[in-house]
Amino acid sequence: MATVAVAGASGYAGQETLDRVLAHPALELWALGSDSLAGQPAGALDPRLGRNGWSRIPRFITNEAALESGADVVFLCLSHEEAAAVEPPPRSVVVDLSGGHRFADPAVYDAWYGFSHPRPEGLESWCYGLPEASPPAGRLVANPGCYATAALLALWPLRDEIEREAVVIDAKSGTTGAGRTLTPASHAGVVLENLAPYRVGEHQHAPEISSLLGFPVAFTPHLLPVRRGLVATCYARSKGADLRAVLEEHYAESHVVSVLPEGVVPELARVQQTDGAEIGVFDDRLTGMTIVVCALDNLGKGAAGQAIQNVNLLFGFEETAGLRLSGVLV
Amino acid sequence: MATVAVAGASGYAGQETLDRVLAHPALELWALGSDSLAGQPAGALDPRLGRNGWSRIPRFITNEAALESGADVVFLCLSHEEAAAVEPPPRSVVVDLSGGHRFADPAVYDAWYGFSHPRPEGLESWCYGLPEASPPAGRLVANPGCYATAALLALWPLRDEIEREAVVIDAKSGTTGAGRTLTPASHAGVVLENLAPYRVGEHQHAPEISSLLGFPVAFTPHLLPVRRGLVATCYARSKGADLRAVLEEHYAESHVVSVLPEGVVPELARVQQTDGAEIGVFDDRLTGMTIVVCALDNLGKGAAGQAIQNVNLLFGFEETAGLRLSGVLV
Amino acid sequence: MATVAVAGASGYAGQETLDRVLAHPALELWALGSDSLAGQPAGALDPRLGRNGWSRIPRFITNEAALESGADVVFLCLSHEEAAAVEPPPRSVVVDLSGGHRFADPAVYDAWYGFSHPRPEGLESWCYGLPEASPPAGRLVANPGCYATAALLALWPLRDEIEREAVVIDAKSGTTGAGRTLTPASHAGVVLENLAPYRVGEHQHAPEISSLLGFPVAFTPHLLPVRRGLVATCYARSKGADLRAVLEEHYAESHVVSVLPEGVVPELARVQQTDGAEIGVFDDRLTGMTIVVCALDNLGKGAAGQAIQNVNLLFGFEETAGLRLSGVLV
Amino acid sequence: MATVAVAGASGYAGQETLDRVLAHPALELWALGSDSLAGQPAGALDPRLGRNGWSRIPRFITNEAALESGADVVFLCLSHEEAAAVEPPPRSVVVDLSGGHRFADPAVYDAWYGFSHPRPEGLESWCYGLPEASPPAGRLVANPGCYATAALLALWPLRDEIEREAVVIDAKSGTTGAGRTLTPASHAGVVLENLAPYRVGEHQHAPEISSLLGFPVAFTPHLLPVRRGLVATCYARSKGADLRAVLEEHYAESHVVSVLPEGVVPELARVQQTDGAEIGVFDDRLTGMTIVVCALDNLGKGAAGQAIQNVNLLFGFEETAGLRLSGVLV
Repeated sequence: MATVAVAGASGYAGQETLDRVLAHPALELWALGSDSLAGQPAGALDPRLGRNGWSRIPRFITNEAALESGADVVFLCLSHEEAAAVEPPPRSVVVDLSGGHRFADPAVYDAWYGFSHPRPEGLESWCYGLPEASPPAGRLVANPGCYATAALLALWPLRDEIEREAVVIDAKSGTTGAGRTLTPASHAGVVLENLAPYRVGEHQHAPEISSLLGFPVAFTPHLLPVRRGLVATCYARSKGADLRAVLEEHYAESHVVSVLPEGVVPELARVQQTDGAEIGVFDDRLTGMTIVVCALDNLGKGAAGQAIQNVNLLFGFEETAGLRLSGVLV
Repeated sequence: MATVAVAGASGYAGQETLDRVLAHPALELWALGSDSLAGQPAGALDPRLGRNGWSRIPRFITNEAALESGADVVFLCLSHEEAAAVEPPPRSVVVDLSGGHRFADPAVYDAWYGFSHPRPEGLESWCYGLPEASPPAGRLVANPGCYATAALLALWPLRDEIEREAVVIDAKSGTTGAGRTLTPASHAGVVLENLAPYRVGEHQHAPEISSLLGFPVAFTPHLLPVRRGLVATCYARSKGADLRAVLEEHYAESHVVSVLPEGVVPELARVQQTDGAEIGVFDDRLTGMTIVVCALDNLGKGAAGQAIQNVNLLFGFEETAGLRLSGVLV
Repeated sequence: MATVAVAGASGYAGQETLDRVLAHPALELWALGSDSLAGQPAGALDPRLGRNGWSRIPRFITNEAALESGADVVFLCLSHEEAAAVEPPPRSVVVDLSGGHRFADPAVYDAWYGFSHPRPEGLESWCYGLPEASPPAGRLVANPGCYATAALLALWPLRDEIEREAVVIDAKSGTTGAGRTLTPASHAGVVLENLAPYRVGEHQHAPEISSLLGFPVAFTPHLLPVRRGLVATCYARSKGADLRAVLEEHYAESHVVSVLPEGVVPELARVQQTDGAEIGVFDDRLTGMTIVVCALDNLGKGAAGQAIQNVNLLFGFEETAGLRLSGVLV
Repeated sequence: MATVAVAGASGYAGQETLDRVLAHPALELWALGSDSLAGQPAGALDPRLGRNGWSRIPRFITNEAALESGADVVFLCLSHEEAAAVEPPPRSVVVDLSGGHRFADPAVYDAWYGFSHPRPEGLESWCYGLPEASPPAGRLVANPGCYATAALLALWPLRDEIEREAVVIDAKSGTTGAGRTLTPASHAGVVLENLAPYRVGEHQHAPEISSLLGFPVAFTPHLLPVRRGLVATCYARSKGADLRAVLEEHYAESHVVSVLPEGVVPELARVQQTDGAEIGVFDDRLTGMTIVVCALDNLGKGAAGQAIQNVNLLFGFEETAGLRLSGVLV
């Protein structure tokens, strides 16, 4: 058993992390941090947390108090800039669900995140924890971005088999990907019956994907009128290998990532509220390119589920402990 | 442990029942019936059923073969008319998720369902299984309708405390409530960005609700542009009792139904993909009426979840075994 | 021709009013007011306003400047409290789309709107302008609320024919009904795949409806996951008259409100982006109540369209000039 | 004035064409064809067509009768295969909204459409009518596909300025793009809160786009949970020219297609229910590629609006007569 503190538990990533911790057989919730809800009972976040049948859940405390709670595992569910400023508590495993520690080079923050990293000297201590490509290797884990996870699940196993000049990633995400903060773009009147790309050509997940692949990619995200889930449609040209075979072999033993049979397309609806991912592989008849499509839940495999998976690997728990992988809900 | 056969496993109610059986600690899947998929592997229904990590799932067989499989429990997930025609296998517990056995009086089928009941002599053998109002009491269980469940959770505890001439139930349901059959009204081009009432004044759940309450009610369902979930907004006039207090007492020990604190409204989003229900109670300032709002998932507490709950009660399992009640997903 | 000033042109009601003014054969846009956009070109609100083919549109000025512009008609598209504080410019026709002048009795504002009316002495000068029930009769017009419009189109012609103790109005509206202001409830992550009632038993449109009908009603609004449109489902008991016949006669000559044939239900999709309304009439088989359903667009007949219709009547233009009534878009 | 017959008026494209014909100052509706509604009044398609204020609309007749009605213009709103089999009535202008006459080479039908063209000898007589790239030049006009229109508006003016090996088109369309036919994929339970690509690498609009551009492209369509509208996100690499400048010059005089200012993204919501298109142009920081995004309404500029625009050009009417281009609806 390991004890857990969640800092930023009232955001989307925080609530989803809390959800999985409560269902995890080997994690015990120790501290629930939220600066806006500090002092209030858990039910203040969601009435479901105040019901019959729930294990006793502690009251909210401040994020600082949660960080200092001495828990074995600390999940940072904060904004990029807030997380970047955190001094990691000694001895705890820390998983940062933000982008605050995903790059060793602090210049990336100036160039892509719009702030100068407040603790650049510590960046080298963090590892990028994508279990299927770059498993966590240290007690400070930078949890990958949701788009980056989908793109890398599709492309990382192929990185040596594809031409480096021709990779395009076109992604579409539900609205929770942008967090609970109120902005003009998050207003339901803008999102409903709408679709639009955003931060075209300049989204911060582009350098994250490129960094792992080792070459630049074109990446465009779009906002979907759905609550959860993400699809990344990736276009690549094989140097010769059978890309489907490469992917099938890479994921043959995975209980988290599935390569779908030929002709079956990934669907948001099948991955929503799960911690798994689906990959479809297709040949383009006209150009001979290969189209690899990855679907996952931005809050599951794209955030909280992956954070738990990383902890499972670090603590030697079963890799899928506490994950949502088995439902066939409509 | 009890063995289970699901007839009609490829419809929405069937798939959701299958989902809960696979997650249930004391139920073992024995036979999977679907006339359209007979002979095919489970993955033909949903690719998730063909993945790593799944317990072994049998191939589809015909519904008739599933009924004759000798399972301890048979779930009938068929159309009203198909289910009505089934001769219950001897000795099995049978839970009918359709409306085919909800009325002792066969005339209701002619008047409200549009067919004459093919086995009217057997109707008396079935009990109506709504755990919070009319717990199952025999091996043949008619599982309540989704709208009827919501209306009765809100109103059944109040039936002696309200005026019988003034009850209105206005309900709104997601599109899965109408099943997987293709109809002009189920086309996405009709459902998206739309809302409309249907079968106004003549929906078959009206007599079901009235039968349990003991007096007639006005009931109107509306189709929402959402996948799952249902809200019933019920208007009643108290004879004098504090209706909130009556409901709070009735559900004080329930792990399935929650009465929300004053001022908190039920929301579809909190009950979707769960087997629980939320109830809100409000006073109308102008008329003095009481407005009781119940939200549940039409496929959860409104269908498959309730079917499992009924089986749990009949077999003496923990009432909530296998149910989805604890998540706080966004 | 009449000249027009729009105050609050950057909100939903303001933008829709602007849209209809630009399409109106007898109205000329004179002043475009918005405190947040003052000084900017019209294209700052919406890039469509900066395109080829548009008639020349003036720059935004402050709301105060718009009010003082000397236009023949002033549309107030402000919040309730802002509009209530406006001193009507002399000689202009003023149409207030907010609730700031819908009641002669200032006590209603304290009791239902959460503020004390800042100019109570002026309230008697305003008339309530619902063309089909209470046509505008003076130069100061309080434009009805969206819910009130739907409820009154359904019930006002029936007010003397129904029992006064038994009227329930259950309404469902798209998200634009709540305006462009950012609130936790307007966040797309809350609205999508969700439905919930709000201000149950205490919404300010209840006294507005009751005031016109002459008796109290129970009214509950719900927020739909759609952008536009509103359905009010009204339950009433006839004293004896044929309520369908009464409604058909009342609207026989209307080009704005249609009573649908028997068996046809109103649909949001058919009234969205129009200035018309549809009414369906149904008998409830169990209780004998009559269910009258009205659908309209909350921003059309429920706001900007009705404001234009009121101006048409006051100026003697054709009643439907500039209205959107003829499309059959999917 | 010209008289009009619509064949297939009960489908989406047919209803939208009818809608525009009724609003057109120089077109007169002469014959309304639908095999399923023949003999019924226009209100059988949509109750709005039976209302006060409508110009007199003829009853439905069979498609064959509509084709033989002698109208000056015939719109074919039929399936690909039905339209392909039509012998064009002599002397009429015929606009085929299906894909039945978009290729001079009949082999394309075998390879991409799944049928052998029933009248291959006539294909040479048809011209491809995309006003901004390939204006109609004869009385038999093949109206472009919706995806092809968006891709070509974005890329056709750039065809000589971009590298031919690197063009990717990732498109997302609302559900009306697939027509009114009931299919498992059109069921609302599949479409809501979902997103999936379809016909990946083998959609029939890929050769249509490639044919106009003169080189192969990779094209993937996705189905959005919205009713109307389409976005095509196109990735290309300039040989050196300033691609934004090329597009701005190409569309400088257009009242139908707008190039948005720098930093402004196209949005479905602004083009829905219009006959215009929006184009945004962006540089990709990492790869130097140019991303050109085009949004339009699949039923407007992508179908019926373009059909009307083609007729306007052929008859010498004002190019935008009867088109919906001026609204700023929310």
